[in-house]
Amino acid sequence: MALRRGKTIINEVKPKIISFASAVGKKEGEGPLGKELDEIYEDTTMGEDSWEKAESLYLKSAINKAISKSGLSKTDIDIICSGDLLNQCIGSSFGIKDFERPFCGVYGACSTMALSLCMTTLMIETGAFGYCVAATSSHFCSAEKQFRKPLEYGGQRPPTAQWTVTGSGAVVLGNQGGKGVYIDKIHLGTIQDLGILDSNNMGAAMAPAAKKTIVDFLSDTGTKPADYDAIFTGDLGSVGTELLYELMLKEEGIDLERIHKDCGLMIFDRETQDVHAGGSGCGCSAITLCGYLLNQLRSGKLKKILFCGTGALLSPTSTQQKLPIPGICHAVSISGGND
Amino acid sequence: MALRRGKTIINEVKPKIISFASAVGKKEGEGPLGKELDEIYEDTTMGEDSWEKAESLYLKSAINKAISKSGLSKTDIDIICSGDLLNQCIGSSFGIKDFERPFCGVYGACSTMALSLCMTTLMIETGAFGYCVAATSSHFCSAEKQFRKPLEYGGQRPPTAQWTVTGSGAVVLGNQGGKGVYIDKIHLGTIQDLGILDSNNMGAAMAPAAKKTIVDFLSDTGTKPADYDAIFTGDLGSVGTELLYELMLKEEGIDLERIHKDCGLMIFDRETQDVHAGGSGCGCSAITLCGYLLNQLRSGKLKKILFCGTGALLSPTSTQQKLPIPGICHAVSISGGND
Repeated sequence: MALRRGKTIINEVKPKIISFASAVGKKEGEGPLGKELDEIYEDTTMGEDSWEKAESLYLKSAINKAISKSGLSKTDIDIICSGDLLNQCIGSSFGIKDFERPFCGVYGACSTMALSLCMTTLMIETGAFGYCVAATSSHFCSAEKQFRKPLEYGGQRPPTAQWTVTGSGAVVLGNQGGKGVYIDKIHLGTIQDLGILDSNNMGAAMAPAAKKTIVDFLSDTGTKPADYDAIFTGDLGSVGTELLYELMLKEEGIDLERIHKDCGLMIFDRETQDVHAGGSGCGCSAITLCGYLLNQLRSGKLKKILFCGTGALLSPTSTQQKLPIPGICHAVSISGGND
Repeated sequence: MALRRGKTIINEVKPKIISFASAVGKKEGEGPLGKELDEIYEDTTMGEDSWEKAESLYLKSAINKAISKSGLSKTDIDIICSGDLLNQCIGSSFGIKDFERPFCGVYGACSTMALSLCMTTLMIETGAFGYCVAATSSHFCSAEKQFRKPLEYGGQRPPTAQWTVTGSGAVVLGNQGGKGVYIDKIHLGTIQDLGILDSNNMGAAMAPAAKKTIVDFLSDTGTKPADYDAIFTGDLGSVGTELLYELMLKEEGIDLERIHKDCGLMIFDRETQDVHAGGSGCGCSAITLCGYLLNQLRSGKLKKILFCGTGALLSPTSTQQKLPIPGICHAVSISGGND
């Protein structure tokens, strides 16, 4: 039986990471993590006539690759859990329908990889699920169209803006097997709303949520940042990361900087790739996890990490109505080897 | 430990229905279920200046009422699980943020009440959750704006169109307590896509998914329709219901008509309320469940039901791109008293 400490769930089965895969666009392939990524598609249209259809194909590709790397067959998968940034999550619905497996749709904005992992972890912890797929996707072009302006408009991006990652990450979780990497704890976040109104500064909207979840998690588990090899946030970017350090130091007296990295600052080279404040989108943390972090855990270079998906729960409608941007952060504690 | 039979989960803890509540609009209050509903708001704007904000208030009202009826306090709730039809699920994000509880966002289109119940059921089955809230919402005006045309346009609705329910339903589930009504099994559905293209005929898009889930569930559990007092679908409406009967009879030799009811045909009086093919929207099955079915189970008038949430996983974008409408159906088996 899994246990609860505060808002943190201490797993009993400790779902195993059986396999993982990433499918990404050209720009992501050219970034610092490029050589660790599985499928790099130079043509970000994926040969489709819409960005939405292309996004579904990235998702499909990542899931197919993850299942293939697991050595399992599609029919061994008990459920696929996924969500994305598109209206009514069509990236996932259309990406997953051909797998003909039970489907659980989730919505956590850019925190979705962590949320998918939390949900599939809970499924395995019930004892009734064997193998589950946790996944998510995003696409720069479908996201710009959805949230900002059509690309053809050629709008100027402010320096606080982040670049939505094109690609998808997928993890096959199992109740047994794997190569010593497993999920030992999860923490589902509480929405934080500090009244941030600028939809071009989502890092600032998400930083308070990241702080809340990290502080609650450390408190629930009686651990401190130094107990982890690293704490990763999803996509705070440069602005949100600075804010997180400030909030942690001022309000909690915790110096997070030495132990923390943000996937939004890892996936692109900001010097050469013109992404302004860094990467974002569901794919950002998904690809960093599935393309890099899990490799590091499997090879033993990392032994214990806290993976914190961060999401800005806004919509273009809420922005037009001048509503603030609520943030959320879901965390997954992943260990390599036995502890 | 929960068990799996095929794609159906047989619960061990059997989460108890501690309390439930509905918050609805004027039209829903005037419908056949009116006297069973908790909070009826004559002003469907809820005093807000946007339909989206109004929808969030319905959700907030239903959750507040359900928690208040449970005798628990907000801080006893370990998590709130919700989703809705609005872009980026802002009905839920903005409706739930003030509860300051952990939040799990789900997306299942109009099947969301069943999906929220499935997810909270699994949470309780892990042993780590005490009380969970499962909820969802929809609003006629926000849905029309989102999926079809602004109300001011005064567009003509075809006879196959359904009327999105305004309101919200919420259930407090617990690992103990309640008054003898509990969830004994759940079944997460598989997306079905039969190529339906008419977004004004979502009943037809969802009927194959309803059939798939009902047939799989009966097969997994070795039961037949007559083993249930009734099988309820979410919002197939008149067109989808007829199609479901036909599919079940022709392809499976099962006469479902005598044991089946559709929430879309229960919530409004089609003779007098001008809703064309019936009710729809996340609120449709949520309110029918929280306003009527659970009362019937608690009073013993119903003893065993299968509640099948049905969802059409389309978006306006996918419709404009002439993509078919994938359907999904998640099922929850609810019993009253001990069996």
